[in-house]
Amino acid sequence: MNAEIISVGTELLLGEILNTDAQFLATQLSELGINVYYQTVVGDNRQRLKNAVKTALERSDIVIASGGLGPTPDDLTKEVIAEEMNKELILDEDSLKRMLKYLQLKNLDTVKCNRKQAMLPKDCTILPNDCGTAPGCIIEENGKIAVMLPGPPHELECMYLNYVKQYLMKKSECIFYSENLKLFGIGESKVAEILYDYMENNENPTVAPYAEAVGVRLRITAKCKTEEEGKKIIEPVKADIMQKVGEYVYTDTGSSLPYTVVHMLIEKNLTISAAESCTGGMFAKMITDISGSSAILNESYITYANKAKTKLLGVKPETLKQFGAVSEQTAFEMAEGLYKKTGADVCVAFTGIAGPDGGTEEKPVGLVFVGVCVKGTTEVKKLQIYGSRDRVRNAACLEVFDIIRKKINN
Amino acid sequence: MNAEIISVGTELLLGEILNTDAQFLATQLSELGINVYYQTVVGDNRQRLKNAVKTALERSDIVIASGGLGPTPDDLTKEVIAEEMNKELILDEDSLKRMLKYLQLKNLDTVKCNRKQAMLPKDCTILPNDCGTAPGCIIEENGKIAVMLPGPPHELECMYLNYVKQYLMKKSECIFYSENLKLFGIGESKVAEILYDYMENNENPTVAPYAEAVGVRLRITAKCKTEEEGKKIIEPVKADIMQKVGEYVYTDTGSSLPYTVVHMLIEKNLTISAAESCTGGMFAKMITDISGSSAILNESYITYANKAKTKLLGVKPETLKQFGAVSEQTAFEMAEGLYKKTGADVCVAFTGIAGPDGGTEEKPVGLVFVGVCVKGTTEVKKLQIYGSRDRVRNAACLEVFDIIRKKINN
Repeated sequence: MNAEIISVGTELLLGEILNTDAQFLATQLSELGINVYYQTVVGDNRQRLKNAVKTALERSDIVIASGGLGPTPDDLTKEVIAEEMNKELILDEDSLKRMLKYLQLKNLDTVKCNRKQAMLPKDCTILPNDCGTAPGCIIEENGKIAVMLPGPPHELECMYLNYVKQYLMKKSECIFYSENLKLFGIGESKVAEILYDYMENNENPTVAPYAEAVGVRLRITAKCKTEEEGKKIIEPVKADIMQKVGEYVYTDTGSSLPYTVVHMLIEKNLTISAAESCTGGMFAKMITDISGSSAILNESYITYANKAKTKLLGVKPETLKQFGAVSEQTAFEMAEGLYKKTGADVCVAFTGIAGPDGGTEEKPVGLVFVGVCVKGTTEVKKLQIYGSRDRVRNAACLEVFDIIRKKINN
Repeated sequence: MNAEIISVGTELLLGEILNTDAQFLATQLSELGINVYYQTVVGDNRQRLKNAVKTALERSDIVIASGGLGPTPDDLTKEVIAEEMNKELILDEDSLKRMLKYLQLKNLDTVKCNRKQAMLPKDCTILPNDCGTAPGCIIEENGKIAVMLPGPPHELECMYLNYVKQYLMKKSECIFYSENLKLFGIGESKVAEILYDYMENNENPTVAPYAEAVGVRLRITAKCKTEEEGKKIIEPVKADIMQKVGEYVYTDTGSSLPYTVVHMLIEKNLTISAAESCTGGMFAKMITDISGSSAILNESYITYANKAKTKLLGVKPETLKQFGAVSEQTAFEMAEGLYKKTGADVCVAFTGIAGPDGGTEEKPVGLVFVGVCVKGTTEVKKLQIYGSRDRVRNAACLEVFDIIRKKINN
């Protein structure tokens, strides 16, 4: 079974937004063992959309369209696909009610054109939009399937995962079952070198490394009939890979490094607090991104200015004067001071130069000192990170998560 | 003149990488006034690539292909396009020499198959690769133009900017000049309703609204010969739109809402501090994402636990007991307490239920109280946000940025 993705939107043709929807759908379909042979992007133009839909329905079993379900006259996806598949559009009262309720809750004005969004193809499967207004739908006709999803990424992802995935799984003959090992502290090329044989010669399961923003993900994929069979195919290969690079692996659940560490802390019943200078709240945000983190984080501090480091953490003015705010000594006193103030089991401190300005020859952009105090014992690590402000801050946070992981694992 | 982009690569169809090449090319072509009506993604498969090229050459004046110029047997772009345009491939000695030199400089092994990369269509314009091995090329035949570029983004961008842009500028008659207004606090449908006439009937400039993750962007685009002419065409339309929806417009520079507000604070020399419960550092992170924010942020607090709200901000235990942590009263005391503690000109407080757990009927997920204290005067606003944990937190932060914008603008 094969599928084609049609992304509808003039903003894509103009390059104003990246086509993340197509990537999301492609990844999801590939996991289900559904081959995607073509992706097409077309604008909000009736004739050209019609051409794209016609071509896609001729050459593909499943057509997944994203975008063009909005309330404005240039939103044409449903109209065009329904026409190509000989379905009329009729008002779905339930979808209209749902939408009006959503708009009311959000205190947004309802406008006449919202009604257009509740016009759906006759006999279609309606896909409720749990994260926005426009409902999606699925038409099946003459052995062809057309799935219509909204364009905004969070709406599309939410609708796909809640409704479309189940639907497609039932249609697929074989599945691809994947497990992911996530590594930190080793490069993609090094992983590839160590696991060269697997990557070159293995057919089932296949092994492939992917460089992530920070760290490496190793995907092991089995072609199988059931998840259980997939697990059996993967098991011995995974065990051998763990022998070879296990020390760098922080999870096999697909979870992020922060998620892994937050859950280790919850399990071990350890509290955490941070004193952030250059990361400015990013570390605390990464912890509180995770539901349940209130069990381990009571309070946390952003001490951006020197005087805040002294006022809140007791960093000595002499230390700041002699060594500077970005120094091993300051990081040490920040972590120690935080421990005195909060008594948290794990106290971490960040001070560095996030850039793009503020670097000197002696202390260049990307220099970050991190202090980690576990149950009263503090160690400072010096990092030199390359890249944008965002990358420097992000990598500093992840390094600290990895330090914590190693420290509390022992 | 119109163009079509064909991105070649199975990794795109599998969703392993994002199609940033297509976005780059789309933006560049749009700046030159070349309409892109279709983008196609196709894998490293001869027949399907052939179909895509054939279709593109039929319906478009210019076909720009990226990817598939590598040394391996599944790199087929040149072969397929040359065949479709009746050109044979011949070895280009200069390109081969250039490539061998590049490989030598980078200490990379030369392999036999690199020779394949120097095979180029007869009579083509050769595009040297200043950042890698594979040369690109342009074929002109029967009024159609085919441009072939390498897939790795830095090679593609480098080759486009160094050689292709000049070539295409000579072919193009006009350019598109755009200005963007960014709005907050109004939905896309409402904007569309107010500006219906512009969207339906305007040809030059065109007006189009785009829903962003939070907020709306309104693009005004003029077709013109020069940027100056474009500005003149846009000016009266922009002025009229500002009359109609100006109160929601936070910028016409394309900047984000946090960036806009941080720079307003810097300009007005106002300091800011936050007391974050449900947002857990996200608001401070959004401020410190912006280089230069150290001028306005000295310290900030994450008071996740009730006892932290009392310890650090002086929220009364009775208030927490009587009204709960997520209440108007707690938000008020948090903002007031923060002002007493820090004396910052703008003190903001967040308390809410980010979800997915922790909601009740009375206090559902997405309920957030935000307190904003400007120079000692505090107001609390109740928000009800729908969506994921991330969306709730993000939207709460952006609402507060917008409140600050309005308050300090007056």
